[in-house]
Formats: sequence, C-alpha cells, structure tokens
Amino acid sequence: MLRSHCMEFSEELKTLKDQVRFDGSFRTGTFSNIVIAGMGGSGIAGRIFSEMYSAKPVFVCDDYHIPEFVDGNTEFIAVSYSGNTEETLSAAEEAIKKGAKVHAITSGGRLSEMGVDTIKIPGGLQPRSAVGYLTMPIINTFIRPKHEDIEEAAGLLSDLDKNNTVQENIATEIYAGRRIPVIYGSTPYRSVAYRWKTQFNENAKILAYSNYFSELNHNDTMPLRDTYRKDEFYFMAFDSTDERIRKRIEVTQKITGTSFKKIEARGSSLIARIFYLIHFGDYVTYHLARIRNVDPQDVSAIEDLKKRIS
Amino acid sequence: MLRSHCMEFSEELKTLKDQVRFDGSFRTGTFSNIVIAGMGGSGIAGRIFSEMYSAKPVFVCDDYHIPEFVDGNTEFIAVSYSGNTEETLSAAEEAIKKGAKVHAITSGGRLSEMGVDTIKIPGGLQPRSAVGYLTMPIINTFIRPKHEDIEEAAGLLSDLDKNNTVQENIATEIYAGRRIPVIYGSTPYRSVAYRWKTQFNENAKILAYSNYFSELNHNDTMPLRDTYRKDEFYFMAFDSTDERIRKRIEVTQKITGTSFKKIEARGSSLIARIFYLIHFGDYVTYHLARIRNVDPQDVSAIEDLKKRIS
Repeated sequence: MLRSHCMEFSEELKTLKDQVRFDGSFRTGTFSNIVIAGMGGSGIAGRIFSEMYSAKPVFVCDDYHIPEFVDGNTEFIAVSYSGNTEETLSAAEEAIKKGAKVHAITSGGRLSEMGVDTIKIPGGLQPRSAVGYLTMPIINTFIRPKHEDIEEAAGLLSDLDKNNTVQENIATEIYAGRRIPVIYGSTPYRSVAYRWKTQFNENAKILAYSNYFSELNHNDTMPLRDTYRKDEFYFMAFDSTDERIRKRIEVTQKITGTSFKKIEARGSSLIARIFYLIHFGDYVTYHLARIRNVDPQDVSAIEDLKKRIS
Repeated sequence: MLRSHCMEFSEELKTLKDQVRFDGSFRTGTFSNIVIAGMGGSGIAGRIFSEMYSAKPVFVCDDYHIPEFVDGNTEFIAVSYSGNTEETLSAAEEAIKKGAKVHAITSGGRLSEMGVDTIKIPGGLQPRSAVGYLTMPIINTFIRPKHEDIEEAAGLLSDLDKNNTVQENIATEIYAGRRIPVIYGSTPYRSVAYRWKTQFNENAKILAYSNYFSELNHNDTMPLRDTYRKDEFYFMAFDSTDERIRKRIEVTQKITGTSFKKIEARGSSLIARIFYLIHFGDYVTYHLARIRNVDPQDVSAIEDLKKRIS
C-alpha cells in the first residue's frame, strides 16, 4: 500500500487552521469565465469556490474532458494535490491546446512539470486534509477575503482542534446503530455537505450521501415519509440563515416524521462559516474511523484501482 | 390531497414517445451564457441539456436566487411544469430585473402570466412524466436534433412501453431484499442517474442515491469495499461507450467485491440513448411502486409541505 503521508491523521487535521492563512494567488487579466478542474479531495476546492463567487460563470470540471466553450478568455485552474490525477492532467492538456490561461495548484507530480503558472503547496498530507491549501489560492485570486475573516476562520478551526466532543458524540450515535449518514446542506454549503459525504466515505469507509434544500423537497420528501429502512439512516441538516430554508427544514421533519440532527455553523464571515463546517465534518468522520477501528488514512482500494487502470 | 392529473400513471408514461416529437423552440440572438432555472421533475430538463451542450457556459439554477453574472447577454429559461414553483418564479423575477432574455416552459400557472417569451406545453401530467415536453424545447433551440434521431428515440420509447419485463425484474429484485437503489452514471448520463434517483423517490417512495464515474472512484471506492450494510443497497451502473470508464466500472467491482447491475443504453444517437435510459428508469420505478403497493402518482407529502411553507 502506497502512502505519501508522514504524520498521524489527527495531526493532519490540525494543520487546517494554518492552511487558511496560505496567501498564494494567481494574477489574472480580463476573462469571461472560470473553469476549475479537479477530482475528489482536490476537486472540492472548485465546488466550494463556485458557491462563493458568481460574478462570472464558473464551471467545475470533474472529468477527462473540458467544455467546448473553453478558450483564450477562460481562466483555467487545474487542482491536483498529488499532481498525477489522470482526469485532471487530461483536462489541463486540453485547456492548454485551446489557449486558455492555465494555472495549477499542486504539491508536485506531472502537473508541476507542465510549464503552466503554478502555485506549489506543501506535500505530505492526504489530499482531503489539504483542503485549505487547495482552496485558498482560488479564493485569494477572485474574492480577496479580509484578513480578519481569515483570522476568524483560523480561530474557529483551532477551537475545533482543541474540543471536538460534540463531533465525537455524533460519531458514537452513528456507529451505535451502524447507520448510513445523509447530510442535508443548502446554499452556500451544498459543497460542504458533499465534502462530509466524501469524508465519511474515505475516512470512516462507510457509504454516505448528501443532498440539499430546497431541491431535496422535490425528491427526498416522499421517501422520508414512506421509505423502508429509514431508521438505518442518520439524517443531519446544516442550519441556514435563510428564513425560507429554515422553515423548510422544520416542516420537512414534521410532515415526514423524521428528525434531523441540526449542525450549526459558527462565525460571522462566510469563509469562517464554510471552513468551520468543513472541519466539523472532519472531526465527525475522524472519530467514526477511530470508533470503527479503521485507519482514516487508508485509501488502499483507490491506490489499487489506480494501478489496475493505468 | 390535490391532484392535477387525469390519467393512470402507466398511461402517462406512454406519452413520452410523443413528447420527444414536440417541436417547440425559442428564437435566440447572440448570447454569452445560458441559465436554466427549475426544480425537481422540471429542473431535470436543464440538467440533461447541460450534458449535451457546452458551446457556451450553461448554469443550472435550482434555487431562489440567480448568479450575479446574469445580464442582457444571458438566455434565461425558467422551467416549471405547474408554473407555480416558488423557487423558479423567484429566479425568473430576478432574471427579468437584470435584463436577461427570459423564456419560460410551462403548462400554466403564474409563470405563464409573467409576460415573457413562453412555450406552453400540455398539462394534466405529473411534472416528472412531462420530461419530454420540458426538455425538448431547450434541445430544439440550442442543438436542433435530426428528425431521424428523434424518431429513433420515439421508437425505442415505444418498445419499452410494449415490453418492460427486464425493468419489472429489477424492481422485483430490489423489493425482495427491501434494498436501497444506488445508480452510477457517467458523462453524458450523470443527470439520467440523478433522474432515476428522483424517480425511485417520488414513484416508489424509497430513498435512493446516484453518483457518477470517475468522480465516485475518489469517494465511494473505499466504502464499497469496507462499509457496513452494503448488502442492503442495490448498485446499478450505466454502461459507457468510453473505454476508460468501462474499465473503471469493471475494476471497481473486482477490487471492492461488489457487483453492479449493468444497465445498457440502446440507440445510436445521443438523444435516443438519453431518453431510452430515462424511460428504462421510469419503468423500474413504476413497477417497484406497483409491487410495493404504493400509488406512483401520490406526492401528498410534497403538496402538504408546499401548503405549510407558503
């Protein structure tokens, strides 16, 4: 089993508070659209950004191929922690051919050798533990967050590092019933809900799913009332500051006779709230791995797959 | 319980072969991007289209608010079968304020009275049964499919209407173990996998989930090997014509010791293959509703919710 890390997973988690202070950014000129290519733990960077920014169209590309519209007016950012993700390399090559302004965020690998405008980030972590390094250069480039907002985020992350009993208790509850987690987000935390899903998958090695309000009211509502096996799932909902969404969360529970564990963000700035919720999920899934007695760093099946398909 | 339909659900399904022949389309000028707003059974139209077209950025909006970039260079299409979906009406109002070129696809309701360029489609169906009417105007406008491709689609849909034993057998298998369906798609059928999820939810009233290759190899792979409760899920994978994806499907099953029910598309044109796969799922979920003895047309919890939040 190949492993590139060199520290305990709990130590990896504690680096996030410093990662959000990473000040790398790209220089951009005028542009018509942004395309961010990346998969899995690296791809989440583009998804998170796409909910924070909509001044120009943002396309998140998690595939081998890029959209037709990519051209010289596209700011194209390839995000791959290892620098060797085959889908992302394929997408970056296509973007170069189409004359896009190509940038890269990576700790090394083939992506760092493509001769494009590259921000090199520290290696040695699981890609999913590097979410700050992977996301901040994009946020710094297009949003330019305030120093105080970054410090608010770092402070809240540090609080979580020191005390994560609430998160541990949720993990204990999930494990007691061997339940399948379902995380309900809403704008601008849909991608954070997806991040939680993937962290349950990769850290705790269990199936998990995410969905979001209000779209889920158009599909999950009937089964929340009438499905079989409902008690085998563990439903969580991120609280919202939008009154209409809060009401939907409340009414959905009542009508369907389902109770959602409410997950509340902390912080006043959007960036702090997003990273706080991300890290909240990091600790729930880390504790669940611990309680299940599985190694949160083990991604041997994924490594195995990569070898067999290459 | 409010119901607007007036025919049996199995009869609704049989209208799809004619729906794909619907020839409505919008006139467009020059534009920079396309935004398609819609929720649930209506929103699927934009999702399907977004996988068929990438000459310009396409943004699928399933929320109350539209992205900042919307302006006079945006072709904005509001899709709501009832014409009364609150999120879609809110999005359309915002688009009008921003000077976008606003179009609507609807069978009536408030959306039909907004004074925008509207394609009126036949009423009397469940929105999710009107997927042809809802999608074809968008496809006709931006893709202009060949007559023979439409006829190929109609022919394959008609075949499914006449013989859907394969679909019934899958429903029987799912029900025998009271299993939770998980559908794995891949480009350009990611939205079809999501459509299946929502059809399981609304027709059969059971929880169901979708995901897609190759992204899922970066999250679901570890749990497919190591999760608890795996046997309580029923995994299906749409076959792909892309060799790399076929290999991933094969290797993922081997490495994780999981067997996916393979779902094969038919047809030579993309539009035929997409609608064939959609209708395949229509019949699986319809039969599952029948076998479970639930009414596929019943969406009382959703109606109830809409009343309580309005």
